[in-house]
Amino acid sequence: MKLYIFAFFGLFLTLNLNAQAPETKEDSLKIREIYSAALVNGKAYNWLDHLSNKIGGRLSGSLNAQKAVEYTKTQLEELGLDKVWLQPVMVPKWTRGAREHAYIQTGPGMTTEVSITALGGSVATATGGLKANVIEVQGIEDLENYKDEIKGKIVFYNRPMNPELIQTFEAYGGCVDQRYSGAEAAAKYGAAGVIVRSLSHKIDENPHTGSMSYGDLPNSKRIPAAAISTKDAEYLSGILKLKKDLEFYFKLSSENHGEVQSYNVIGEITGSEFPEEIMVVGGHLDSWDLGDGSHDDGAGVVQSMEVLRLFKETVYKPKRTIRVVLFMNEENGLRGGNKYADVAHSKNENHIFALESDAGGFTPRGFSFEADDAQFAQIESWKPLFEPYLIHYFEKGGSGADIGPLKKGDIVLAGLRPDSQRYFDHHHAATDTFEHVNKRELELGAATMTSLIYLVDKYGIKRINLEKDQKL
Amino acid sequence: MKLYIFAFFGLFLTLNLNAQAPETKEDSLKIREIYSAALVNGKAYNWLDHLSNKIGGRLSGSLNAQKAVEYTKTQLEELGLDKVWLQPVMVPKWTRGAREHAYIQTGPGMTTEVSITALGGSVATATGGLKANVIEVQGIEDLENYKDEIKGKIVFYNRPMNPELIQTFEAYGGCVDQRYSGAEAAAKYGAAGVIVRSLSHKIDENPHTGSMSYGDLPNSKRIPAAAISTKDAEYLSGILKLKKDLEFYFKLSSENHGEVQSYNVIGEITGSEFPEEIMVVGGHLDSWDLGDGSHDDGAGVVQSMEVLRLFKETVYKPKRTIRVVLFMNEENGLRGGNKYADVAHSKNENHIFALESDAGGFTPRGFSFEADDAQFAQIESWKPLFEPYLIHYFEKGGSGADIGPLKKGDIVLAGLRPDSQRYFDHHHAATDTFEHVNKRELELGAATMTSLIYLVDKYGIKRINLEKDQKL
Repeated sequence: MKLYIFAFFGLFLTLNLNAQAPETKEDSLKIREIYSAALVNGKAYNWLDHLSNKIGGRLSGSLNAQKAVEYTKTQLEELGLDKVWLQPVMVPKWTRGAREHAYIQTGPGMTTEVSITALGGSVATATGGLKANVIEVQGIEDLENYKDEIKGKIVFYNRPMNPELIQTFEAYGGCVDQRYSGAEAAAKYGAAGVIVRSLSHKIDENPHTGSMSYGDLPNSKRIPAAAISTKDAEYLSGILKLKKDLEFYFKLSSENHGEVQSYNVIGEITGSEFPEEIMVVGGHLDSWDLGDGSHDDGAGVVQSMEVLRLFKETVYKPKRTIRVVLFMNEENGLRGGNKYADVAHSKNENHIFALESDAGGFTPRGFSFEADDAQFAQIESWKPLFEPYLIHYFEKGGSGADIGPLKKGDIVLAGLRPDSQRYFDHHHAATDTFEHVNKRELELGAATMTSLIYLVDKYGIKRINLEKDQKL
Repeated sequence: MKLYIFAFFGLFLTLNLNAQAPETKEDSLKIREIYSAALVNGKAYNWLDHLSNKIGGRLSGSLNAQKAVEYTKTQLEELGLDKVWLQPVMVPKWTRGAREHAYIQTGPGMTTEVSITALGGSVATATGGLKANVIEVQGIEDLENYKDEIKGKIVFYNRPMNPELIQTFEAYGGCVDQRYSGAEAAAKYGAAGVIVRSLSHKIDENPHTGSMSYGDLPNSKRIPAAAISTKDAEYLSGILKLKKDLEFYFKLSSENHGEVQSYNVIGEITGSEFPEEIMVVGGHLDSWDLGDGSHDDGAGVVQSMEVLRLFKETVYKPKRTIRVVLFMNEENGLRGGNKYADVAHSKNENHIFALESDAGGFTPRGFSFEADDAQFAQIESWKPLFEPYLIHYFEKGGSGADIGPLKKGDIVLAGLRPDSQRYFDHHHAATDTFEHVNKRELELGAATMTSLIYLVDKYGIKRINLEKDQKL
């Protein structure tokens, strides 16, 4: 893309700088510089184009995941960081197989094809597939109401995401147990398989995969589990009301292949004054295999890389050490997040702050913080600096799955919170692709992350629990 | 679409109602009810599906525009409003014609096709097209620098939208003069035609049309004007640096057909206590012809209709009169907006508030208000009621083109302000289509508008300028 020529450079400094304290004014100017650099010369979108279109879906243990490791390592090396390295981590390897297929049979020869896909980690069906009657339930807790009918049947979990919740992640949280633990629970009642309504508000034909677990069920008790598209879930539910004894057929050819070697990709700018105080910014490099993983979590990967690039471009030398960590295997194991934390803790590294972007590359609305009251009050005092960029949401809450294992002592964990309305249209589905990412929205997220890291670097994080911490 | 079944009704009331005054608590509950109704049973998306996919682009004076008048009138009638009527208005009729075509010629037989489209209102080229050398300029004020070279050539306006501006409408405002007045200005220097860089941040192959004016130029002096895609604008600019004397060819077959009859579509719920106090909510029913006008402004049309439907669904009887006005001809004449205001003023109707949605069907961020300080302070006091819905932006500023002519005396004008990052990817281009509208984002906008109108209805608007007003 060619460089732009601007006639309007004068326009952009519309902040009311005169009324601010000198330090705040300096921060305002630096943050404006960061946003401009991201929006004018940002590299996040180009990196994402490569990850999505030249590599594609990056399921842990796949060749694509390895390509993504190599590509991002090379790109980080080109930024001129102080260190770039790979952190070895063993990850589970699971493959979907090519022969997924399902239909509803309402009578001899009367079949309707429906869209399903294996949940990540599911065992395959028998080679010939599985055909059985269906029991529709509204959740795991609903199984008990059908306990005498489930044996030998397919349990169909059909509780939809609640559209009334403004934050779509809350609606997801209200349903994801069906996907994660539904097979384990139904197997205990003797079910032959499970079908789970896709976790999406959108009514369409795309099934959404995602991780599931059999808990401590022995292999012989594990039953195949698939997601069904929301449209077909509605259809199946409607048909079941008319014909309770219909048969559902599905075939999965997924396979578990044990563990294989993979890596977290890490780059660092070493702090000039307090190199032992480490700030992490990251996303996860692996993705599901149906789409190209652009929103989940290619966006978080390239935004995190962009944080360090923006420091370089705006010639900012951090006082503290900043590391970008591209975690492997968030989707089906969290091995990368656990490994990074294990190594950090075993080396007694002093991590003061970690920020993850893993909620899509949409317009940033703010951050959620795992912090104590005094730390949160400190961070909230920076909020006015973000308001010119329409960043209004600073709340206590969760952060990110990969950085969660770092929680220890005083560290503050944070999650970027982009607008969430479209996220679950794409999440874990074939529609999680590059063309659904808007360049500016992605860049604004990167600039917002960089601005927060800049402030943490400049002012540090309050060490509230110092004494308690030292006992850990 | 089938009705949903919810297992989580208990979750949604997470507002802290206990700490609120009784009146505020009532408002919180009502607004929660409005959002839930929009998100669960909303009709806006279905209406938009019809407008976009069954009707399509609705340029003033076209058969599609008439179909849209009839369809929306019928839909409003089905809502059981107190009155539904058509307000006649004459509109300009302009047609694009089918034979738009352009190429760059760098030598004999060496041509590269480029994407252009006529600006709305442009005259056609001669039947054989126009071929001439090109002068690239960065804006109207730049013409003077080339005054001796322009005669007989094609002026190429290539000032891009400034990506540093967070609100994309500001970047649009910084460039739109090239499109609207560029032909008039260049014609005065003797140009043979003009090509204008499309008003979009996105670098792609879609030209973006939009209105233009020849001002008071006589017909004989009017020159053809087309938008060129951003990608081809960059390409043309690059080639011009290598070969200043290249030739550009374009052909337009557009035609002006004078004026034809059309209509504003109006529906009303008459106020139960203060029927003479009128609140307007609206969008514009016409659109450009390249896409189906889903964001501009099908979204505003269906959201405005949804405001009245949500009052019906939530069994709210407004004290004041609320009118939905679907304005005709915002894009190339503003005849509908002017007509509505003319009739209102001539009847001495007391309009206290008007709200327009004409910035796309994206996640709502807030409102911009044309109000005096005391009125704005009153409205701003309602802001905490919106924060649970992530509505944070209440600012003084512009409202909407169609309601602008209503400005007189004490009326407060307001514009819905959705997230603006993606708007100009689609605005006036072939990509302004239904699949780029997210159902939840559209519905959240409708709920946000309804909640504001509810509060205006309940509390009224401060009448600051009453005495001054009466002198008008």
